[in-house]
Amino acid sequence: MTPDLATVCRLFAEYGLLADQGKYDEWLELFTEDCSYKVIPKENADHGLPAGLIYCDSRAMLEDRIETLRAVSKCNIHTDRHLIGIPRISTEENDEVLVEAPFSVYQTEQEGDTRLFATGLYRDRLRLNGAGLKIREKMVVLDTFAVPSLLATPL
Amino acid sequence: MTPDLATVCRLFAEYGLLADQGKYDEWLELFTEDCSYKVIPKENADHGLPAGLIYCDSRAMLEDRIETLRAVSKCNIHTDRHLIGIPRISTEENDEVLVEAPFSVYQTEQEGDTRLFATGLYRDRLRLNGAGLKIREKMVVLDTFAVPSLLATPL
Amino acid sequence: MTPDLATVCRLFAEYGLLADQGKYDEWLELFTEDCSYKVIPKENADHGLPAGLIYCDSRAMLEDRIETLRAVSKCNIHTDRHLIGIPRISTEENDEVLVEAPFSVYQTEQEGDTRLFATGLYRDRLRLNGAGLKIREKMVVLDTFAVPSLLATPL
Repeated sequence: MTPDLATVCRLFAEYGLLADQGKYDEWLELFTEDCSYKVIPKENADHGLPAGLIYCDSRAMLEDRIETLRAVSKCNIHTDRHLIGIPRISTEENDEVLVEAPFSVYQTEQEGDTRLFATGLYRDRLRLNGAGLKIREKMVVLDTFAVPSLLATPL
Repeated sequence: MTPDLATVCRLFAEYGLLADQGKYDEWLELFTEDCSYKVIPKENADHGLPAGLIYCDSRAMLEDRIETLRAVSKCNIHTDRHLIGIPRISTEENDEVLVEAPFSVYQTEQEGDTRLFATGLYRDRLRLNGAGLKIREKMVVLDTFAVPSLLATPL
Repeated sequence: MTPDLATVCRLFAEYGLLADQGKYDEWLELFTEDCSYKVIPKENADHGLPAGLIYCDSRAMLEDRIETLRAVSKCNIHTDRHLIGIPRISTEENDEVLVEAPFSVYQTEQEGDTRLFATGLYRDRLRLNGAGLKIREKMVVLDTFAVPSLLATPL
């Protein structure tokens, strides 16, 4: 069974909204137990260099990362806003599907200034999970290697 | 009957395009007669404080507001561009549905400079209307309390 | 037969991703042989003035244009990121459909700075092609007449 575009869209909509609302427990539930999560600059991705800014190869490790973010965020209060473009379903294999989607993230500081935080591309492997989908692999390919401030935001 | 994602997407696409084209009569037609329309900073929304920047609790009041915008816009000519993210349908009740969608709005001034005007989240209650949907309640939650210039743009 | 929203979304997702990945041969394949491709400032579009920044009235001409871009891009290395909003299907005629979609494009320079490059509206005529769609006419309406740098990016 192939997931349709609407099912994939639903997952991305959840992903962005839960992150922006700081609902990290529900956000983590979007990933499989054996997930991986990487943030990597485009230059490295283009040259097949695996070295990234963030690398988690299980949901437990991703949970740890999020715990750290939560602690840091108490000193650096801001609002995030994900805008995720139309996803492209590129390949299907058994119960998994490869999907790409462009994104931009804005950050608003406590003083009220909003600025562009990052743009890039999600390259994800999604796994069928009942009627829905879960994230088996997420690669966040950033358009720049020069990411402002600490990566104190789940991308 | 539950509206599907495509039907909700169609409404949001119309909403953004009609606003950006200045087709305000058609834009107003997207709302029910008994609609409400609020613009509120995220901080107030998070703390349950209803005080907002704009509050209209009927389409007649919204029409008045738009009339004022039109008058003001003659002195402040600019082009708006809404980018609305994938909507999330969160709850359904009888013939109504709760939907959230992130957005960004850009403004281009007469001199040709384009800048980010606002980012935020739509939290809407939509009502089934034949084969389509109308806006029963629109809450525009802005990521910043510091909105540049007059709110001379329907968000 | 009418293309549904998902089919139109698929085309726009391909369009943006192929352009951003620099896969111009596949990008050109999205157009019909007898396509036209125009980039025009909003002011001209509003006043019915056809003079634009770019005008190609066949795929051969568009291919030439892309060849030039490729040559220029060797001196001006950057990464583009298209964010395309939800398309609106406005009219259908025989085997063609008129579609509008808002967009924003970001550019990241070699030094790592990301900035907004352009916002605007696609006004396209798409033609049914088997199970999919091809671009018969693309009009890229830019919100500003003041486009930064050379138009060394397919919009």
